[in-house]
Amino acid sequence: MEILTNPREIESKSFRIIAEHLAGVELPEREKAIVTRVIHATVDLTYATELIIHPAAVDAGLNAIRSGKNIITDATMVRSGVNKKLLATFGGEALCFLNDEGVIKEAKETGLTRSMLAMRKAAEVADGAIIAIGNAPTALFEICELVKKGLAKPALIVGVPIGFVGAAESKEELLTLDIPYITNKGRKGGSSVAASTVNAILKIAAGNNNG
Amino acid sequence: MEILTNPREIESKSFRIIAEHLAGVELPEREKAIVTRVIHATVDLTYATELIIHPAAVDAGLNAIRSGKNIITDATMVRSGVNKKLLATFGGEALCFLNDEGVIKEAKETGLTRSMLAMRKAAEVADGAIIAIGNAPTALFEICELVKKGLAKPALIVGVPIGFVGAAESKEELLTLDIPYITNKGRKGGSSVAASTVNAILKIAAGNNNG
Repeated sequence: MEILTNPREIESKSFRIIAEHLAGVELPEREKAIVTRVIHATVDLTYATELIIHPAAVDAGLNAIRSGKNIITDATMVRSGVNKKLLATFGGEALCFLNDEGVIKEAKETGLTRSMLAMRKAAEVADGAIIAIGNAPTALFEICELVKKGLAKPALIVGVPIGFVGAAESKEELLTLDIPYITNKGRKGGSSVAASTVNAILKIAAGNNNG
Repeated sequence: MEILTNPREIESKSFRIIAEHLAGVELPEREKAIVTRVIHATVDLTYATELIIHPAAVDAGLNAIRSGKNIITDATMVRSGVNKKLLATFGGEALCFLNDEGVIKEAKETGLTRSMLAMRKAAEVADGAIIAIGNAPTALFEICELVKKGLAKPALIVGVPIGFVGAAESKEELLTLDIPYITNKGRKGGSSVAASTVNAILKIAAGNNNG
């Protein structure tokens, strides 16, 4: 058995395999690059047809990144997966308020999820930023509510929380918003979907749009 | 639509849904607790039958945790997902050598993946520890090789890398080792599978074995 040990060879072989699977899928080039990275991260080929990319989402994301805006995540695993080195070249940072002291305190006092309260905190600094939610349905419900009330003005919401309780419903809510979004239907999603989606947009922003 | 906002209610409802799905699946209690947490993290019910848990794996993992051993991960996303607060109550830490300066330098010099080189570094401090691999097949190939050579002596390997290139093959290699492991067959896996598996063992170690 030949074991590939060179990271570039591994990545190109992986992208060739995904490209073969996507041969029959008609998507604009930039959307295909996003879908490719999500499939690369999940080995789940259903994202080829199931990722829902708002027509203004890619431009909104690119504009945010190129303007040095931040990416605010709902979970530390999403933050961990974001290509922070590449983001920093544009001046942006990846932030997560889940372990913020005020958030932890308020969660204890109110019995609400930290994920919800972290989004309220995020809303204060989310003008023009990208919100990336890969874990908590309550985070997505909350940011949708804040957007509807005019209390949060992100450029783009990547809303792909995962779970049996609320994930599907929170995405239905996102789909009613008049704001650029990237999402999917149903229970599936997760940190790696959220991180690979924003990383794909980062790569396009950096002019490295090869999938 | 009623939106649950209390984290405990959300978790119990989720575990009830999973328990219904697992009603027909015969598994010892501790193995079922692990499978439940993996399904909770992935919404992928196939793990009910596809997770392969070596007969000595749970005891080996519990013993490592209760002895204050560390959990060494292949990726920062896995490390990020580990319940480090609970691990610390036993004296252990979650470590990841992917961004170690020596590893980065050697990767540049050799053209090998950082994931492989991080496992060589991990092997030096892995005696009796838990190795959790949720991302890179090359990390799993490497730790298998080091174990076979007697150069690494972890108590347990959680080997669930994901990907089109090498993931399935690296798990086949793990299955040939005479060492406790938790793995699955095929391309699927990922950071959330690795993290939820070790978190399930952590919960059992803490006496909170309710799924």
